[in-house]
Amino acid sequence: MVSKFTPEPTDATCVATIRTLAADVVGKANSGHPGAPMGMAPAAHVLFTRFFNASPASSKWFNRDRFVLSNGCALQYILLHLLGYKLSMDDLKAFRQIDSLTPGHPEANHTDGIEVTTGPLGQGFANGVGLAIAQTHLGAVYNRENFDLINNYTYVFTGDGCLMEGVSSEAASLAGHLKLGNLIVIYDDNHISIDGDTAVAFTENVEQRFLAYGWQVLHVDDGDNDLAAIYNAIATAREEKGKPTIICLRTTIGYGSKQQGTHGVHGSPLKADDIQALKSKCGFPSDQSFYVPKETYATYRAVALRGAQLEVAWESLFAKYANVYPKEHAELARRIAGKLPDGWEQRLPTYKPTDPAQASRKLSEITLSALYPALPELLGGSADLTGSNLTRVKGSVDFQPPDTGLGDYAGRYIRYGVREHGMGAIANGLSAYGAIIPYVGTFLNFVSYAAGAVRLSALSKHQLIWVATHDSIGLGEDGPTHQPIETAAHLRAIPNLDFWRPADGNETSAAYLVAIKSKATPSVISLSRQNLPNLEGSTIERAARGGYVLYDVEGEDLTIVSSGSEVAIALEAASKLKAEGVKVRIVSLPCWSVFDKQDKKYKMSVLRSGAPILSLEALSTLGWQKYSHEQYGLEGWGASGPYQKVYEKFGITGTNIAAVSKRVIAFYKQKGGEVISPLVRAL
Amino acid sequence: MVSKFTPEPTDATCVATIRTLAADVVGKANSGHPGAPMGMAPAAHVLFTRFFNASPASSKWFNRDRFVLSNGCALQYILLHLLGYKLSMDDLKAFRQIDSLTPGHPEANHTDGIEVTTGPLGQGFANGVGLAIAQTHLGAVYNRENFDLINNYTYVFTGDGCLMEGVSSEAASLAGHLKLGNLIVIYDDNHISIDGDTAVAFTENVEQRFLAYGWQVLHVDDGDNDLAAIYNAIATAREEKGKPTIICLRTTIGYGSKQQGTHGVHGSPLKADDIQALKSKCGFPSDQSFYVPKETYATYRAVALRGAQLEVAWESLFAKYANVYPKEHAELARRIAGKLPDGWEQRLPTYKPTDPAQASRKLSEITLSALYPALPELLGGSADLTGSNLTRVKGSVDFQPPDTGLGDYAGRYIRYGVREHGMGAIANGLSAYGAIIPYVGTFLNFVSYAAGAVRLSALSKHQLIWVATHDSIGLGEDGPTHQPIETAAHLRAIPNLDFWRPADGNETSAAYLVAIKSKATPSVISLSRQNLPNLEGSTIERAARGGYVLYDVEGEDLTIVSSGSEVAIALEAASKLKAEGVKVRIVSLPCWSVFDKQDKKYKMSVLRSGAPILSLEALSTLGWQKYSHEQYGLEGWGASGPYQKVYEKFGITGTNIAAVSKRVIAFYKQKGGEVISPLVRAL
Repeated sequence: MVSKFTPEPTDATCVATIRTLAADVVGKANSGHPGAPMGMAPAAHVLFTRFFNASPASSKWFNRDRFVLSNGCALQYILLHLLGYKLSMDDLKAFRQIDSLTPGHPEANHTDGIEVTTGPLGQGFANGVGLAIAQTHLGAVYNRENFDLINNYTYVFTGDGCLMEGVSSEAASLAGHLKLGNLIVIYDDNHISIDGDTAVAFTENVEQRFLAYGWQVLHVDDGDNDLAAIYNAIATAREEKGKPTIICLRTTIGYGSKQQGTHGVHGSPLKADDIQALKSKCGFPSDQSFYVPKETYATYRAVALRGAQLEVAWESLFAKYANVYPKEHAELARRIAGKLPDGWEQRLPTYKPTDPAQASRKLSEITLSALYPALPELLGGSADLTGSNLTRVKGSVDFQPPDTGLGDYAGRYIRYGVREHGMGAIANGLSAYGAIIPYVGTFLNFVSYAAGAVRLSALSKHQLIWVATHDSIGLGEDGPTHQPIETAAHLRAIPNLDFWRPADGNETSAAYLVAIKSKATPSVISLSRQNLPNLEGSTIERAARGGYVLYDVEGEDLTIVSSGSEVAIALEAASKLKAEGVKVRIVSLPCWSVFDKQDKKYKMSVLRSGAPILSLEALSTLGWQKYSHEQYGLEGWGASGPYQKVYEKFGITGTNIAAVSKRVIAFYKQKGGEVISPLVRAL
Repeated sequence: MVSKFTPEPTDATCVATIRTLAADVVGKANSGHPGAPMGMAPAAHVLFTRFFNASPASSKWFNRDRFVLSNGCALQYILLHLLGYKLSMDDLKAFRQIDSLTPGHPEANHTDGIEVTTGPLGQGFANGVGLAIAQTHLGAVYNRENFDLINNYTYVFTGDGCLMEGVSSEAASLAGHLKLGNLIVIYDDNHISIDGDTAVAFTENVEQRFLAYGWQVLHVDDGDNDLAAIYNAIATAREEKGKPTIICLRTTIGYGSKQQGTHGVHGSPLKADDIQALKSKCGFPSDQSFYVPKETYATYRAVALRGAQLEVAWESLFAKYANVYPKEHAELARRIAGKLPDGWEQRLPTYKPTDPAQASRKLSEITLSALYPALPELLGGSADLTGSNLTRVKGSVDFQPPDTGLGDYAGRYIRYGVREHGMGAIANGLSAYGAIIPYVGTFLNFVSYAAGAVRLSALSKHQLIWVATHDSIGLGEDGPTHQPIETAAHLRAIPNLDFWRPADGNETSAAYLVAIKSKATPSVISLSRQNLPNLEGSTIERAARGGYVLYDVEGEDLTIVSSGSEVAIALEAASKLKAEGVKVRIVSLPCWSVFDKQDKKYKMSVLRSGAPILSLEALSTLGWQKYSHEQYGLEGWGASGPYQKVYEKFGITGTNIAAVSKRVIAFYKQKGGEVISPLVRAL
């Protein structure tokens, strides 16, 4: 039975407050998007005053409803301020100003109350699917009779732009498959995007598309005014437990402005006289900026109080849970706190050089299998490459609607389908929810499909792990279409992202060690398809510094610095050269960003002056100049063939690298003078 | 009236030939995907023998039907061989071997008859939309009564994987909007992907989704055997002129194998006994590999002959067209030949230092506007950022279905919607069709959304131009979510892609000059939102070399090498330092890949030894180590605020760069010894 809407005398004032604040916030910044917040004000008001459960004073309360403004704009800041989050009127006035809490688009882990980073279109929608999966999963794992501990909803506001993006299509299809009844999307169907009327490019039947995905579709014809209809739609959506819901809310962009309904109000501030007229129309003083009537504050503070009470009740329930289910309580409390269980690192596999050669994707599987029982927060998946990525730990259960017979919601393995971008953005949502460390699998080359989500992981400080296999020409026969060349340079250039390319078993364990401890940094672990020997000199501890001397000699003629599958080839070259009396030292550099954080003295000891340094990696050499004097890698595309033949074709063999090394040594001998480490810099 | 299917006695043999060849080709390579070709053999046979118009001996005949195997696999090689393209039986036997014409996935401009590069899922589908747009557009421009010169169909085979990818969703939505009646997609609905049954992740209603996009949806229930039904579906699709069609073809993956219908036949060769049994079942000698019955060759050679006759007839029609429409004929012939009109370069705008400062996105618009009338092959568009990218030349007509009243099919501006990845892949198809130079607009940061398509442009040698505006922190208020950091490094690491970052008007013209002349290389032109002064010393000719000395001094204390919007800041620093008696030389390096191709002597004259070189760019410094001793750029994310404030925050101002320069100079003075150019290398 769906509850009924009860109008309140302050409703109109509150809606008008949001609309006029939006105009003022954008107007003062002289930058931003006033149209969407003005159009979505009624939906926001109804959602937050009637349904939304959150405790602004305690914004991380675990069972709060999650709100995502996928078409990220000033609306969210206004709501956060009215609700009493740590966002003052001065913060609103500093919208889009340097070092403010109110940057151009909402950023997670920057502003109190922002769950995920939005603005880049489609991301928030997919993040919302991740947030909804997280609730579904954790509820299935921890809820018990009379302990409905984790039962929040995820509400997503989205616009036409988000729905045009492929990433939202991918996520929507998966959300329908997964029957996420806790996900409610409110679609601001205002028929306007930056290029004007959506008639120019977006004439598909959105309702029919979402029905095809298995969603419930509801309509509100007058989203500008009909609060009761908005209420009824949300209430109906909440009752549907077996499907996600999208509410198609017909609104007028910039409602209340003289330019309402045009793209003139999409991305440009309203003119001063337009703002004044809007205020007069709302019955507000037309000469006053940032005006918030007392009754608006009072209404929203009451909402906050309701949320605080819910939180108190929840804490009490959680305390009772501790008595009845002490083990589950302890585990969930630990996970919510983002703490790792004692001694988990002891499970990381270690290897001796006599252990058999294995593909690092297989070493990754061994590591995951070792950690999986101890770290219930690991929630895995792959974009339809499970058997290639080796991401599914034996015996694990799929995350699936129970009625499919394919798994259940407590399952810890997500079949993402061939949806890399959706997967990346969903995993950002999983991470943002908390108590989960998501890991996702695809070929390294196809991490690029998810580039939009990957950079937002890093910007948002979301912890997640990409298991990126088939990481070079070493994948062999699949050929250049599947062989990454530029991918490492791309990922290494992203701030706050650790790109690991381990050379053997111990280095693979090190990558997982650091990735799992890095609560605010995503990691991409780049892994081979082909077998790699376990190396003399590698240890978890050494590799965890990002770079180390794998094979040392005094008075070297050359240092080769390498990563991943090429380290063994560098060693082979060194061994050949040793027989000729040439002294080559080997440095393994599995993770640049982690190495960069080591102290200068250590770094200088690894990449020391005195002899030239040659880098070796079966990828673009771009960036290796930072760590070496000379670079050997791929100057063009890869090739299709058995992997050993491909390596031969590009000269990445012990024999050829030995020859290249001699050329390098001779060149620097002839050049004369001391060879200074590339780390010796002014800046 | 739809034509009727006439069975031929050789049909069964031909289908069996394709199936057994697929098993043998993959079996010999011991790598590849036998399942899809075996399942799609009947559809391929019916399409190519009954409908497909192409002339294998003249594979570039302009009005040929285009075929795209989006789920790229051995099937296409088999068909090309049977049809008599330049692909021998030995080439088939070299499938997935080094330097063969038959790499792991089909590559355009590598193998005769391959239109676009496929394998990375979803790309081929979207390429097909581009091919269909190209035909629609060129037909509308050049066809006349009795001269239906350009009227080919585009046929796309696609699988479940492609349809899960967001890029295909984006392209499908746009194709429906554009009412592309010449596009026929055959969907291999085999219910199997790598993770097993599609029930694990892909349970949406594909028919309903495509109906929502405005497509015609047809069904073939028994795609394994029912040739007549396949025929009828294709014939019906061809009759529908107002909508693209998708034919949902229910097939059994690996049909004929003992493992048919399982993911066991998806990506692994069949066992030897399975192949033998398959051949026996087909009535073929079970001990013979790569067996092609004479009647199969005869049937396919007859198809080739039919195509050759069609080509002859077309050439004759085209010759008559020359008489009636000499101007159109000359233009079309020129475009088909890929030649540029004489003197087009004269239209490139040139600038003097006294010309007003302008944003380089505006300079790009001026350039496009100047070239647009002279280069009808320029077909523009933007991912819903037209007013920001400034990609729409004033007075141009939108490419739209005429009945929308929003444009017509002769229109040269495509409203791509917020679909960057789809746009990139569609533009690859436009380029692959020929006679078109597509350019597409979005923010530089959102080129990343299209990374999967961008790398395939480069691998496929497709000419296209990305107009990538808002290319740094200089976009200001939109903030870190929109400010590229890693993007330049990413694009610079892609082989055969020219990433331009022009500093002023002349450099912008130079970028277009080279981009338009580069028939086999895509370009990304990175453009500012903020105004840039026109620089003393820049010319089109100099900038077209990729890098040059913008401001020279003898006996310099420092060279600053920079790109784009930071060049003027470097000059400002140099000017401040000059007042202090410090001599700073300025090098502008708008395009690394073009600079790298200059002769060594020239390059050494630009980045000469004798003084330290400092790079300056408001992006990640990764890669600049190749051209400089020291780097200044962004070590982390950008910030939201007015752009001048953002530049100040990160120290990218004349004043601070002057101070940084002094630190660099002092450091190298103290270090002592000659400072050698970073271009002096052994390798």
